[in-house]
Amino acid sequence: MEDSKVDTILEAARRRFAQYGLSKTTMNEIAADIGMSKASLYYYFPDKERLFVAVVEKDMQEFVTAIGQLIDKPSRASFKLKKYITVRNDLFHRLLTLSKIVNASQTYELFNPVFNELKLTMFKREKELIERILHLGAEEKEFKKVSVPAYAELFVSAMIGLRAGGLYIETGDDVARYEKISRQTQMFMDIFLAYLQPDK
Amino acid sequence: MEDSKVDTILEAARRRFAQYGLSKTTMNEIAADIGMSKASLYYYFPDKERLFVAVVEKDMQEFVTAIGQLIDKPSRASFKLKKYITVRNDLFHRLLTLSKIVNASQTYELFNPVFNELKLTMFKREKELIERILHLGAEEKEFKKVSVPAYAELFVSAMIGLRAGGLYIETGDDVARYEKISRQTQMFMDIFLAYLQPDK
Repeated sequence: MEDSKVDTILEAARRRFAQYGLSKTTMNEIAADIGMSKASLYYYFPDKERLFVAVVEKDMQEFVTAIGQLIDKPSRASFKLKKYITVRNDLFHRLLTLSKIVNASQTYELFNPVFNELKLTMFKREKELIERILHLGAEEKEFKKVSVPAYAELFVSAMIGLRAGGLYIETGDDVARYEKISRQTQMFMDIFLAYLQPDK
Repeated sequence: MEDSKVDTILEAARRRFAQYGLSKTTMNEIAADIGMSKASLYYYFPDKERLFVAVVEKDMQEFVTAIGQLIDKPSRASFKLKKYITVRNDLFHRLLTLSKIVNASQTYELFNPVFNELKLTMFKREKELIERILHLGAEEKEFKKVSVPAYAELFVSAMIGLRAGGLYIETGDDVARYEKISRQTQMFMDIFLAYLQPDK
């Protein structure tokens, strides 16, 4: 019962955020959308930022679950890693729409301390997923032996960076930015995988 | 005359920022340090953020000049690229001290829109420098032929990302963070250079 109420709130919030962005959405509007009193909404979420974080967290949890299933399936480690990047780019594209980051100055609000914990959690989870893939690749002799934690951290940090770099694009066009990030993560993936090839 | 006054202000501002950080420094204190009236200081710099940007810009200009000289010297392109990373890490270590970013939440102030233009400028300048190094390497057949603008952009974006990733470290210790960033940029460099090796 609790869970379904929270889900209802999250769905309504997601719709608002996706259509109007974080800054132009109010708690009142979300409450009105689902016929809930403002007091009830505040009972579940103390402020708009925390509600936004909950929406993002749900997406991230789904991402982590999807990647976990991907890892468990029998496939080459390099395939898993490539798939990881595609799924990750899709996730962040969705999150981008959610927060309506249309130019770099608007990312400002996303650096609110409320989001730091979320980013740190995501970083750790992603690192664990990549570690699993690198371990699998080494076990199957598909990758050469490297320090798994160090290279997993490098991989995730680079992913974050290429996304940040995408914000430096001069056009305010979301599609162009998404394409640029996709292209760059693909290039990074290629040099990363080339490096992991076992020496012949 | 103008220039030397500006230099005096920048030096005083640098000392304050380095010792107390951006948020704990006031325009009054900087003016007092050099026996200048507050009105005169504001004549040169309309606010603290712009003064901070000017201090950072000076560092960046020195960096760009130093790398330009490095590029002109006869040496292997891979050496230039490695040296670039060392000099860049030193620069950002100094800038880190300047703004006293001791934990991720304090980076908040650095995402002030005032700094966005600065970051975009720096991104473009770095990209040009890396392009020059990649061209030199290709000319000398030290590197294989790749799309120079695309790989230069990948390189600079990854550098930005590894720095951002450094902020995800759990300890608030500047030295540990600096070491982590140095290690990761070194690892990235190794896989980047390995990829650029001409096919045999």
